[in-house]
Amino acid sequence: MTDRSVKTPRRTRADGDRTKQLILDTAVRLATVEGLDGLTIGKLANATAVSKSGVYAHFDSKQDLQLATVENARKLFVDVVVVPALRDEGLERLTGLCEMFLSYVEQRTLPGGCFFAAAASELGGRAGPLRELVATNQRDWIGLLSAAASQAVTNQQLRSDTDVAGLVFELNAIVISANTGFILHDDPVIISRARSAIERVLDAAKPT
Amino acid sequence: MTDRSVKTPRRTRADGDRTKQLILDTAVRLATVEGLDGLTIGKLANATAVSKSGVYAHFDSKQDLQLATVENARKLFVDVVVVPALRDEGLERLTGLCEMFLSYVEQRTLPGGCFFAAAASELGGRAGPLRELVATNQRDWIGLLSAAASQAVTNQQLRSDTDVAGLVFELNAIVISANTGFILHDDPVIISRARSAIERVLDAAKPT
Repeated sequence: MTDRSVKTPRRTRADGDRTKQLILDTAVRLATVEGLDGLTIGKLANATAVSKSGVYAHFDSKQDLQLATVENARKLFVDVVVVPALRDEGLERLTGLCEMFLSYVEQRTLPGGCFFAAAASELGGRAGPLRELVATNQRDWIGLLSAAASQAVTNQQLRSDTDVAGLVFELNAIVISANTGFILHDDPVIISRARSAIERVLDAAKPT
Repeated sequence: MTDRSVKTPRRTRADGDRTKQLILDTAVRLATVEGLDGLTIGKLANATAVSKSGVYAHFDSKQDLQLATVENARKLFVDVVVVPALRDEGLERLTGLCEMFLSYVEQRTLPGGCFFAAAASELGGRAGPLRELVATNQRDWIGLLSAAASQAVTNQQLRSDTDVAGLVFELNAIVISANTGFILHDDPVIISRARSAIERVLDAAKPT
């Protein structure tokens, strides 16, 4: 896209924004397979057909690109997983969040499965702003599940003595493990196993 | 280690084996933080104080180094997690495997947590012999848990109608999630949450 021949119309701000969005959408997909460390200007240029200098122009540094990629992945996650579940409340919201997460994995929304599960594994042992941003996103997700579970307790859909943190730990473990297993073994049975496990865990917490 | 001055004694086969083992032990630790893709000859030479050519000499290619690293990680996992649990049988073996896994994470045996959890996330979306080797190891682990759970059913320590595959899916999800959470958030509460969750899952499967 560095062609400056007379016939090329001048690039507008909107063109630039669209190009940046294309690069970031591609970066999110690529990072689930190659890792955030594997995001190179060359690979992004290749995958988007934007020139290397065109990719460079949008980001000050590799870390800047990686941070913007995490922000873009957050937006995708909110749109695909969170927003559809927010129309319900309490227990229905809690099961909705788990179910939307499983669909997002099952439908291969991203080629390497959940962006944040991959990023948490990749960055877990390191330090720095990228790890902090991923950890914050993960805490927000746990916070969403916990708020829905607490509301389900208030609504008496779950028992009053429910260990909310423990319950949410189990639900999150199930969906994340379904993601890793499904991507590694390419086996849809893992997703149904996760659905049954979620049902078992929630049934055990319901008032008798 | 390329010093060939007259006073240096000739390197023996045993020296070579020890150097190779040092490189591989370092590679396992390094891969949990930098990924299997992040294993470069330069980083390994740096971390082991073996010269680059000394590192090169032991491996035909990067993939050869990566495959040997996975094999070495398997040996460590068997020594630290599997063998101690094998002295028990049935339900005790099942709980022992989960507990040894949690200790292996909690004691920071490897700086970035479980080698195979990290490798499964890194390689999940790709193809090739490295992914296959990691997937095989993961199946072996699930097989170990399943055999112990089945024996616990036979021994009537767990109910005869236990869904063994479902139970093992849940137990594995809990320990893997404890690993990722502990490494990402650096919070020991996650390990105790995992211990309680394992207890809850197994209690629910015991005969009443």
